[in-house]
Amino acid sequence: MSKNRLIYLPLGGAGEIGMNAYVYGYGAPGKERLILVDLGVTFPNMDTSPGVDLIFADIAWLEERRDRLEAIFITHAHEDHVGALGHLWPRLKAPVYARPFTGTIARLKMEDQGQDPETVRFVEPWPNRIAAGPFQVSYLPVSHSIPESSGLVIDTPVGRIVHTGDFKLDRTPIVGDPFDPDLWAEVAADGVKVLTCDSTNVFSPNPGRSETTVGPAIRQLVERAEGMVVATTFASNIARLKTLAEAGRDAGRSICLLGRAMRRMIEAGVESGVLTDFPKVVSPEEAADLPRDKVMLIVTGSQGERRAASAQLSRGKYMGLSLAAGDLFLFSSKTIPGNERDVIRIVNALSEMGVDVVSDDADLYHVSGHANRPDLSRIHTLMKPEMVVPMHGEHRHLREHVKLAAENGLPAVVAVNGTMLDLGGDRPQPVEFIETGRTYLDGAVQIGAMDGIVRDRIRMALNGLVVVTVILDEEDEPLGEPWVDLTGLPETGRSRAALSEVLEEDLDQFLRRADDKTLADDDKIEEAMRRIVRQSAQTEIGKKPEVVVVISRLSA
Amino acid sequence: MSKNRLIYLPLGGAGEIGMNAYVYGYGAPGKERLILVDLGVTFPNMDTSPGVDLIFADIAWLEERRDRLEAIFITHAHEDHVGALGHLWPRLKAPVYARPFTGTIARLKMEDQGQDPETVRFVEPWPNRIAAGPFQVSYLPVSHSIPESSGLVIDTPVGRIVHTGDFKLDRTPIVGDPFDPDLWAEVAADGVKVLTCDSTNVFSPNPGRSETTVGPAIRQLVERAEGMVVATTFASNIARLKTLAEAGRDAGRSICLLGRAMRRMIEAGVESGVLTDFPKVVSPEEAADLPRDKVMLIVTGSQGERRAASAQLSRGKYMGLSLAAGDLFLFSSKTIPGNERDVIRIVNALSEMGVDVVSDDADLYHVSGHANRPDLSRIHTLMKPEMVVPMHGEHRHLREHVKLAAENGLPAVVAVNGTMLDLGGDRPQPVEFIETGRTYLDGAVQIGAMDGIVRDRIRMALNGLVVVTVILDEEDEPLGEPWVDLTGLPETGRSRAALSEVLEEDLDQFLRRADDKTLADDDKIEEAMRRIVRQSAQTEIGKKPEVVVVISRLSA
Repeated sequence: MSKNRLIYLPLGGAGEIGMNAYVYGYGAPGKERLILVDLGVTFPNMDTSPGVDLIFADIAWLEERRDRLEAIFITHAHEDHVGALGHLWPRLKAPVYARPFTGTIARLKMEDQGQDPETVRFVEPWPNRIAAGPFQVSYLPVSHSIPESSGLVIDTPVGRIVHTGDFKLDRTPIVGDPFDPDLWAEVAADGVKVLTCDSTNVFSPNPGRSETTVGPAIRQLVERAEGMVVATTFASNIARLKTLAEAGRDAGRSICLLGRAMRRMIEAGVESGVLTDFPKVVSPEEAADLPRDKVMLIVTGSQGERRAASAQLSRGKYMGLSLAAGDLFLFSSKTIPGNERDVIRIVNALSEMGVDVVSDDADLYHVSGHANRPDLSRIHTLMKPEMVVPMHGEHRHLREHVKLAAENGLPAVVAVNGTMLDLGGDRPQPVEFIETGRTYLDGAVQIGAMDGIVRDRIRMALNGLVVVTVILDEEDEPLGEPWVDLTGLPETGRSRAALSEVLEEDLDQFLRRADDKTLADDDKIEEAMRRIVRQSAQTEIGKKPEVVVVISRLSA
Repeated sequence: MSKNRLIYLPLGGAGEIGMNAYVYGYGAPGKERLILVDLGVTFPNMDTSPGVDLIFADIAWLEERRDRLEAIFITHAHEDHVGALGHLWPRLKAPVYARPFTGTIARLKMEDQGQDPETVRFVEPWPNRIAAGPFQVSYLPVSHSIPESSGLVIDTPVGRIVHTGDFKLDRTPIVGDPFDPDLWAEVAADGVKVLTCDSTNVFSPNPGRSETTVGPAIRQLVERAEGMVVATTFASNIARLKTLAEAGRDAGRSICLLGRAMRRMIEAGVESGVLTDFPKVVSPEEAADLPRDKVMLIVTGSQGERRAASAQLSRGKYMGLSLAAGDLFLFSSKTIPGNERDVIRIVNALSEMGVDVVSDDADLYHVSGHANRPDLSRIHTLMKPEMVVPMHGEHRHLREHVKLAAENGLPAVVAVNGTMLDLGGDRPQPVEFIETGRTYLDGAVQIGAMDGIVRDRIRMALNGLVVVTVILDEEDEPLGEPWVDLTGLPETGRSRAALSEVLEEDLDQFLRRADDKTLADDDKIEEAMRRIVRQSAQTEIGKKPEVVVVISRLSA
């Protein structure tokens, strides 16, 4: 019996939807050779991460073991799978593999952060294999909402792992690889030990629909439109972009793409060969000169992002173009939970302009990129794995996927970020729990989510801030009175006197009465002043502000 | 021809869903006698109003004219219709009218803010009428998701206004008044000049369902449950509470209510007579002693509110009760857009405990309290008004409601907050635009949304804060070096040196080089230091922080 083990360790993507980063390893415990699958981001929000630019998985565990890291495999070009590559690669420095379209985007991510794009190597799909230590890895084409998505067939000394990546069962995806059940069956023929599987849509009870099903409805909508037509979707959904553009062209409209991400995706699509026959596009300047009923804009910002084209158009002129009463705006997208408020803001702003907004309440103009519950069952059955490891889901999705696997007679376990599984037995077995977390990209700096930096910002936002300044002379005697500076607080409270004056008076009284021992001790002064400000503000304005006390000693 | 006019002026609730406050007036322009319908709140969020407790309509316009305000009429006891009463009444001081259940809640709102509860007068519904200056007002019972909701029949010298309040067409609402088409027809018989009408569900294409339709599914779910059952809904939805409690009782479970709002609503229901036959409830202590399968908790917090019972239970023990694997948690509610993230957080926390969560994706366990599109059409047709004024909706809802009215042959206009309409003609006519806005309750203080206070908090949350302190002596010479204090910012940046030291050095250099004129001028020093900190931080950490500069002059 070998002392080697086969391990799985999600650092991101398990227990959340976002920042995917999955580690596999094989070898003696603590000496496993490792590979990493995906290195994505998740997006910040005002509630929990104000001011943060991007969120990455905490890769400290892997960084400490990077001498054992054989390679990084990127399954597809969505931000939650590749977005952190340029930022985190310098801490890992392993070869990166991807198929050409994904690789083109991955190279841009490297370049954006000043890294060598050539680090990313383009690979051919199954049956081509890449050797990475004890692993042989092959890219299995799958259908998804971006071209060239791939599962990974990871052959190990103890059996085959199929890591699905994000996938759906679409035999007619318009752009990119169709679902090919024969190919999956071929992969399964030699036996599958582990199916590591997308869980996103495990709660969706009906089989998923093909990308082709949205074409007719979109076509009809565009044909009937009388003013300008604007459509938004995810920039990376090139199939949808093509469907939209063709609907516009066939209705006699010139197509204009707005938004950097969209142009970048189209270019990568053409460059890598996954996209052919995209209708001819015109520039914003050209579009502005055409009659409104001869133009169709396809724009970024389907999630209400404030700086993207949709939001800009809803606020007024963008790139010389502006909307008007009688125009049509189509959301060919689903609103990701949490983005509702931003999307609705745009819809109402468009409504004020007299623009008719069509959103996707009835699933007419959008289909999901993930396998629904019956589709997952079909893959369970098709692949006949010895065990299932649910990934790419919040806890509720993973747990439900475990139940679904059980219905299909397959052992499975919920393994959230930091849960190391031993996959060598007849069922996934938790063996270690690694401290994981999130890393925030904050401006140019990577900070830990638990460092307290963002917590302090949230506190200032909730409570407002009082800066107290006090000067002490060479004898530790107060020089003048302490004063306060308020930010994010009302000027007056219950007593109708200026809040700053009330606080200054209370602080001055404290200083006058303080004994020498207190006055000699910065910590004591600071603690007392903080307490006084908070109590006094509570009485005056019903809030306890954050307090910064600055003590200047002339003796110092 | 009379020089008097009939006006409508929404101060809140039109162009948003929340903080309802509608003014009607009749008289010579600028001398109209006024009534106010509803005085509600809307709820803050971290994106736009961090740290704020409640949001009210800006009633400055009405306050300036309070000598002309005859009365305040509250249509029903939802927070967005009555929540601001206790806070804003002291600025208006007019008699308040409501039916007994609504009035009981309104009196509590007054008491909570130290106002005389007896100011709220209980009234009988139609055909009883209240005289209020030139108006005769009668309460028209309607069905909604809270008992005793009412429309108002407002008779004016130039005709009848029907102000629907929030309503649906439910002939079997379980608790509260059923929709009575004969009663509405009776009101319409003498002719209706204006229908001011709820717009919330104008985008819902199918007729609304009755509250009774959710009973069977809830009953079945509870019967089959094996562990503890927990159900959450809006505390004010007494009919739903009753349905839930009866389902629990009939399955042999003891009912326990958790959450202050829920107990308060039930008490008001019993006290005012709208609620009878509510199953017997047990205390949390009693519930904790019962076998899990003999207990059903009905709890607050269906929107994921962090301090409510649902969230508390998802984090651990609450009132001596805690959930466990095998328990069932039912969301008998819809998630209001914007609350998704908070609700999902609870669902995942429950999933981690092994609790099965049933939410209302398929509308099995919840129905809306508002009239859907066909229901609105039915009311248009039934009431045959001369014109429709859409209210209670975001801009998109109001605009769609105008379109629906047009389909029904009725003139209508979008009138958002601050738009004064003249209703005397044959169609609603905008005549004035009043500066309106929002008032934030921030702790104990009412502040204006545009005062800049909350904007400053948001900036600190996004950008972090640098406090700069500098001391100048009697000759305007710097005494020691300037120093900085960082909050919500990383300690080190690109240069790997401490950010505070980098900033202090740059500031010190500036001070050394500054000429006498600059050093004598606080504004100049402050401006320069702010600029230096922002530039220097941008280079180091890629962010421009907020800056507070405190200059201490020993001469002062």
